[in-house]
Amino acid sequence: MKLRVKTIPFETGFTTVVAINNRDALRYDLHPGDRVIVETTRSPMRQCIAVVDITDGTTLRAGTLGLFTEVARELGVSTGDTVSVHPAPKPDSLHLIKQKMRGVRLQMRDFDCIVKDIVAGALTEVELTYFVCAAALNELSLEETSYLTQAIARNGSRYKTKKYPVADKHCIGGIPGNRTTLIVVPILAACGLTIPKTSSRAITSPAGTADTMEVLCNVSLTLPEMRKVMQRVGACITWGGAIGLAPADDKIIRIEKPLSLDVVGLMLSSVMAKKFSVSATHVLIDIPYGRTAKVTTKARAEELRQHFLSIGKLLGMQLTVVLTDGRQPIGNGVGPVLEARDTLQVLRGEPGAPRDLREKSLMLAGHLLEFVGHVPKGEGYTVAKDVLDTGKAWKKMQEIIAAQGAHAQPRLGRHSCVIRATKGGRVREIDNKAIAKLARMAGAPITKGAGIDLHKKVGAKVVPREPLYTAYADSREKLAQVKRYDRILAPYHITSSSTGKN
Amino acid sequence: MKLRVKTIPFETGFTTVVAINNRDALRYDLHPGDRVIVETTRSPMRQCIAVVDITDGTTLRAGTLGLFTEVARELGVSTGDTVSVHPAPKPDSLHLIKQKMRGVRLQMRDFDCIVKDIVAGALTEVELTYFVCAAALNELSLEETSYLTQAIARNGSRYKTKKYPVADKHCIGGIPGNRTTLIVVPILAACGLTIPKTSSRAITSPAGTADTMEVLCNVSLTLPEMRKVMQRVGACITWGGAIGLAPADDKIIRIEKPLSLDVVGLMLSSVMAKKFSVSATHVLIDIPYGRTAKVTTKARAEELRQHFLSIGKLLGMQLTVVLTDGRQPIGNGVGPVLEARDTLQVLRGEPGAPRDLREKSLMLAGHLLEFVGHVPKGEGYTVAKDVLDTGKAWKKMQEIIAAQGAHAQPRLGRHSCVIRATKGGRVREIDNKAIAKLARMAGAPITKGAGIDLHKKVGAKVVPREPLYTAYADSREKLAQVKRYDRILAPYHITSSSTGKN
Repeated sequence: MKLRVKTIPFETGFTTVVAINNRDALRYDLHPGDRVIVETTRSPMRQCIAVVDITDGTTLRAGTLGLFTEVARELGVSTGDTVSVHPAPKPDSLHLIKQKMRGVRLQMRDFDCIVKDIVAGALTEVELTYFVCAAALNELSLEETSYLTQAIARNGSRYKTKKYPVADKHCIGGIPGNRTTLIVVPILAACGLTIPKTSSRAITSPAGTADTMEVLCNVSLTLPEMRKVMQRVGACITWGGAIGLAPADDKIIRIEKPLSLDVVGLMLSSVMAKKFSVSATHVLIDIPYGRTAKVTTKARAEELRQHFLSIGKLLGMQLTVVLTDGRQPIGNGVGPVLEARDTLQVLRGEPGAPRDLREKSLMLAGHLLEFVGHVPKGEGYTVAKDVLDTGKAWKKMQEIIAAQGAHAQPRLGRHSCVIRATKGGRVREIDNKAIAKLARMAGAPITKGAGIDLHKKVGAKVVPREPLYTAYADSREKLAQVKRYDRILAPYHITSSSTGKN
Repeated sequence: MKLRVKTIPFETGFTTVVAINNRDALRYDLHPGDRVIVETTRSPMRQCIAVVDITDGTTLRAGTLGLFTEVARELGVSTGDTVSVHPAPKPDSLHLIKQKMRGVRLQMRDFDCIVKDIVAGALTEVELTYFVCAAALNELSLEETSYLTQAIARNGSRYKTKKYPVADKHCIGGIPGNRTTLIVVPILAACGLTIPKTSSRAITSPAGTADTMEVLCNVSLTLPEMRKVMQRVGACITWGGAIGLAPADDKIIRIEKPLSLDVVGLMLSSVMAKKFSVSATHVLIDIPYGRTAKVTTKARAEELRQHFLSIGKLLGMQLTVVLTDGRQPIGNGVGPVLEARDTLQVLRGEPGAPRDLREKSLMLAGHLLEFVGHVPKGEGYTVAKDVLDTGKAWKKMQEIIAAQGAHAQPRLGRHSCVIRATKGGRVREIDNKAIAKLARMAGAPITKGAGIDLHKKVGAKVVPREPLYTAYADSREKLAQVKRYDRILAPYHITSSSTGKN
């Protein structure tokens, strides 16, 4: 059937939807959720698959087809043009998703079919939700997780290189200020290793690695741009979202979000697919655990470590997992500019540089150097320390920044306020979630210069009225909000030295 | 924050979605899927809850809020108006859905909370899918099914009466032509029983009870109109969709459709909620089974019967279940006009009336008469037969038709063709699904007069070239399609009498 186009100025961001009048739907036996192929009538012929949504005459007259912005753009049509519409078969993956719901173990080709349909936009949000829910309830086996990982990586762009080994690192997150990547990557690159690092922006945290790196230089590199930087410097720190390495993963994450699901199989495949797609051969996974971290107990961290090791083995990837201290933020600054400041202080060897960030970065870099076989066992830390202390890592970082396109460094928030201790004692813990929330209230990561600068870390002695942290923001209202919520969230746990109690 | 409205001419039919520019989203810390309260700035203040979708500047400028037709209508605003937008808390039911995913047994108040949110449009399609998927994988217990049933019925309109007993019947479907309702209802009403029947339109079948009744009279009654008909005649046969008896059920069904899920707990609560909401006290459930029916084996039918009986007991509803022959369509006609013709022939006692439709209707009506205690055990069939044969049921049906608003009877399809047997023998089975498909190809239910008229039923002797059925349609193309697909679908299974084989 032929219908006249009416564009609807809106992007669904998911499956492509076309709206059709209820009379036309009856006439052509189309039902809500049916799939159709929409084709242009003029050459060059272009087509796309879309899901039918049925609407009444007040929204759309009979004989017209409502096209959302992205479909209209893909087809190159606009209001008044004619397109032809035919029923399309249901995607094969629906049948596989139903099997997964029944608890059937799926094969490599099954996951490939599902992921292909996800990337092509052939599955609706509802259909993909069934897949995610089935994966959550009928847990994915290790084999299935490895199949899904490979399918996600293969159905996306891929960074390839012959300069082996290719090192990579990943932290499962949840610790504010934990910007070791910006120190580990230049150390490794200065040692001559290949390390094509893609990072994420903040979703619910006050800064992602990409947000912090963006303070220093451009991170929105395309795949060809990333290739150029890699050829020139041997390392990069870019925003993964711009590259399209694992597009299916982004859609799966979007489905997990509303219920804040934490499906182990999906999390593993999400992380590993990104390593797979940059051709990593040696990967270090950092799992911080602590009462207010993402992983709350050592037992759970150990369990996750085992999952990672098993999936790494199945994927034929060298993988090492370290469990780290997650009792407090790492470094002093929380928020893009403050975190960038901390990493620069460490790289430049400045006296005020946060020790914990320096030590954790050296430990991770040393571990990776030994793991890839670049230095003998037991010498990693010393080599890393040497590369950092002689300024070689800082030189390398300057090369990376220049290759990606240096930014003028933005300043700290215009306004600030100091939060002081109400009692004396010793800092036992700093609530990661509370600090993250306060830094977001101050405006991070949108306001790059906003955030929290910690003056006291775990173990420090505190006397009453001593400054605990400084909050930076671009408006006084936001600072007032931080002050108000500091009392509610109480991020510092201070115990009086004698009793050891709160 | 205050934003200018831009209306988007489209109805989502599900949750209310508002679109916001990505700069505004960053500025106000809103993420895709976040919930906001949108309020009008002029009095009278109106508000609604909506889910945020984030779009770029080409679709929506910063400072504007995209409102879909239904939200704009609800708020009474149009392009250029100003609204204020605030973050809204996540609905309580999300937490309960997550519990159901973990396998927790939910309570009455939990289901009430979930169903309230479904009806209010507070859950997105993705969120509701998690509920449906969890109900499918962590099966709902009987108690849970009864809680869900009551929650669905209570969170919708309800037909109440004091004229007890209130009889109702329901067929789980899958058998073309099976229009016993149009005969059972007038028989029962002629006996003085209250029977407020609400039926559905065809979704994937060539005619629903509502589609067939619509050939004779208006079926799109509102609840007050239905009340009037009930007061005047004591019975009605209306389209449930117009009344809003169980609005949550429609949304749940919409989520089950893409994967053609058949979740027992959801099916039971769907059927029983509708009985509950018309205050039925005595319900007869008809489960036809056969190789090409919805229920394929007697064992499965028995199992379903037990499920229905148990849930009926829990709901304090008198319930009786009959298993019936589902080896072929019931009656001769398939398609609204043809099915209406069959029922009128039975009601008028015409000699050509289909015997199987007459007998099945008498059996069901007799069973219900005994079940409600209107006649002693063993006398139901005779009483029903008497009411039918003396014309009392036909008189009652005429009253129902008049009360609902009689329609001019539409004619059969303009074109027809006869399909003949290619070999002789005896009809062993008629494929329900194939007949339904052919009738839809002919144009049913949209073209009321389109469909299939069967000349031979199971057990009949057939000689080669003898007519098996006539197809009616409004276009020659559709008839040609029926002819072509008759060979592929081969609806008649004819065995040569001697061997008993195909």
